[in-house]
Amino acid sequence: MLSFDIVEYQDRLSKTKQRMAESGIDVLLITDPANMNYLSGYDAWSFYVHQMLVIIIDEPQPLWIGRYQDANGARATTWIYDDNIIPYPDYYVQSETYHPMDFIGEILKQIGHGNRYVGVEKDNYYFTAKAYERLQRSLPNAIFKDADLLVNYVRIIKSDQEIEYMKRAAEIADKAMTEGAKSIRTGVRECDAAATIYYEVVSGTKEHGGDYPAIVPLLPAGENTGAPHLTWSDRTFKEGESVIVELAGCYKRYHVPLARTVSLGKPSNKLQEITPIVVNGLNEVLDSVKPGMTCGEVESVWRNSLKKHGIEKEARLGYSVGLNYPPDWGEHTASIRRGDSTIIKPNMTFHLIPALWFDDYGIEISESFRVTEKGCETFCDYPRELIIQDPFDMNRHGGRIS
Amino acid sequence: MLSFDIVEYQDRLSKTKQRMAESGIDVLLITDPANMNYLSGYDAWSFYVHQMLVIIIDEPQPLWIGRYQDANGARATTWIYDDNIIPYPDYYVQSETYHPMDFIGEILKQIGHGNRYVGVEKDNYYFTAKAYERLQRSLPNAIFKDADLLVNYVRIIKSDQEIEYMKRAAEIADKAMTEGAKSIRTGVRECDAAATIYYEVVSGTKEHGGDYPAIVPLLPAGENTGAPHLTWSDRTFKEGESVIVELAGCYKRYHVPLARTVSLGKPSNKLQEITPIVVNGLNEVLDSVKPGMTCGEVESVWRNSLKKHGIEKEARLGYSVGLNYPPDWGEHTASIRRGDSTIIKPNMTFHLIPALWFDDYGIEISESFRVTEKGCETFCDYPRELIIQDPFDMNRHGGRIS
Repeated sequence: MLSFDIVEYQDRLSKTKQRMAESGIDVLLITDPANMNYLSGYDAWSFYVHQMLVIIIDEPQPLWIGRYQDANGARATTWIYDDNIIPYPDYYVQSETYHPMDFIGEILKQIGHGNRYVGVEKDNYYFTAKAYERLQRSLPNAIFKDADLLVNYVRIIKSDQEIEYMKRAAEIADKAMTEGAKSIRTGVRECDAAATIYYEVVSGTKEHGGDYPAIVPLLPAGENTGAPHLTWSDRTFKEGESVIVELAGCYKRYHVPLARTVSLGKPSNKLQEITPIVVNGLNEVLDSVKPGMTCGEVESVWRNSLKKHGIEKEARLGYSVGLNYPPDWGEHTASIRRGDSTIIKPNMTFHLIPALWFDDYGIEISESFRVTEKGCETFCDYPRELIIQDPFDMNRHGGRIS
Repeated sequence: MLSFDIVEYQDRLSKTKQRMAESGIDVLLITDPANMNYLSGYDAWSFYVHQMLVIIIDEPQPLWIGRYQDANGARATTWIYDDNIIPYPDYYVQSETYHPMDFIGEILKQIGHGNRYVGVEKDNYYFTAKAYERLQRSLPNAIFKDADLLVNYVRIIKSDQEIEYMKRAAEIADKAMTEGAKSIRTGVRECDAAATIYYEVVSGTKEHGGDYPAIVPLLPAGENTGAPHLTWSDRTFKEGESVIVELAGCYKRYHVPLARTVSLGKPSNKLQEITPIVVNGLNEVLDSVKPGMTCGEVESVWRNSLKKHGIEKEARLGYSVGLNYPPDWGEHTASIRRGDSTIIKPNMTFHLIPALWFDDYGIEISESFRVTEKGCETFCDYPRELIIQDPFDMNRHGGRIS
């Protein structure tokens, strides 16, 4: 059931241990579900309870510690020996008396790691303030270090197999955008369009079934196009309004996001004006990306392109993307924004989302790309343009502006 | 756009302030997206960045503090005055230099609350170890208190409007289970069945569009029925195996979960034996629930019912359910398990999931219910039985065991 060859997991583990050594960390406690998956293969919707992967610098195997009823899932999806899968009893789950970190602390002491340098992922969703407090109380002789993003930075350069999975995710994204855009019609409920997109994303292609994306399909419509993270309701789409669709194809937890904007009937003057500005800016950025540039330099291409039209953008332009779990498909490492000094390297993968949001309207036309030896290549094939739905022809897209 | 009357939000706020007063908390920092929604109406997929609702005991309005690009969404979905919606600039997002909690701490100091008793939700997914560290550093004169679950306990008793929303969610759950069970057939890919369920859950009914559930549909099959939190893959269902379906209907973020087990063709002897034990135990529990009992007493009905058959169950039997966001639809307050002393009251709502998982097979048949004045009533209408798919008749369900 492993998604990668055992050699690839070993390589990831060895890179992680190298970073641990550089940071003076003996024992790394991993609570980010993507990092747990990356190093062990573990894949289950169990991250709503406390769980972790323990990497000990001088031990060949990680430990998985989690809920009793999830231990079978750990045995089924990881390369970890059964002896290293350690379940805690169910009375630790969401209890006001017992906390799983007490159990985990005891285990670490019992196996002789209670007084070592312990790394924790301090800003991960699944490592709460209380988890840290209880762990510190349970391990008074440990010296804690912040290991936030340590594994994420190992993840930043993808292997060929990971790129292959992202290509499959991209096929799913293209298909979902095609069917999703078709379903967005005047008089259709937002929830029915969202359902269509979800169906396509989860079903996937004939060859490759889809996985759940770490963020739901977002499709703000009308005035809400200025509020990018609102989700659908059961209102119906209105003639003349525009709809932003942001989705991701996902294959074996690897994401390829894609955003487009749909106009129901003739686009507003504002949209007609802004579309070529966004598409040109996006093209200029994609043409400019080269290994050796910094993320900040990539962003400046966009900034200069917009400046010609008197526009300044507040939000970041993009971010590293790939393996992830809810609530975010971004990897929290490199951002394509002013001041980010990350040097672009081959097989880094980014979602480039040069969105423009104003008070009462917005536009998103995005691409996910892989850095190549000489430049970059986009994952998706979907036309890079504003989609215009012709109200008189239900069978095909109307005109396009790009 | 508010889901509830303003009077209901005010009532929730006033109950929250009462609990704050009892706990000696002046300023409550709410990072749980369900609690943010409950008190303000805020509803967006923005919880992957740091954000919060600030409740000040002597101020009539909460403050919303979040990312710049989400402020429009806060204006659109909450009853908070525009002046109380405070956005932080985008360079705070997922940065190794800036942290949103530094910004939030500064705001609290500026408005004169830097030296008060400050409550934080210590074990919430969206309040990380680092968020707490940075907040403490930024507010050296504040005295922090653990306010984990403070608002969750206000949420535990539902209003009539909340119950109405859960009834709509139940209709969606029934429909999704009906269509989902039909789609689970020998030779069908797991991902295609999951896609069908997702379509139904998100589309909803003709009258009421669906919302995204806080947990994806889970459908472990074959040997994996002993590993309840594994998600689907693109393998195909095999004749003779069983499939567990656990899903929730969701309406305006209110969940009604429902689980059933499907047998593809003749059920194994083990399944045939265990099914009536589970259904009878479930019925006995539902018949026994009455206001005034403790959750622990409810669980003992199940435990005694199982004991007659020589079975002991490790996991908890159920939990409080309702309003929520990923990664969990449970409310983290009352659990129906041994030792839980929560007293059952009218309009509490639970997911009762008397699942039995063994090493290589499992069964789930669950019900969500509301406590009434004299007993309880279930939300869903789906038959309480093992679903048997007849391989020779694609148009209807086969026989059933209950």
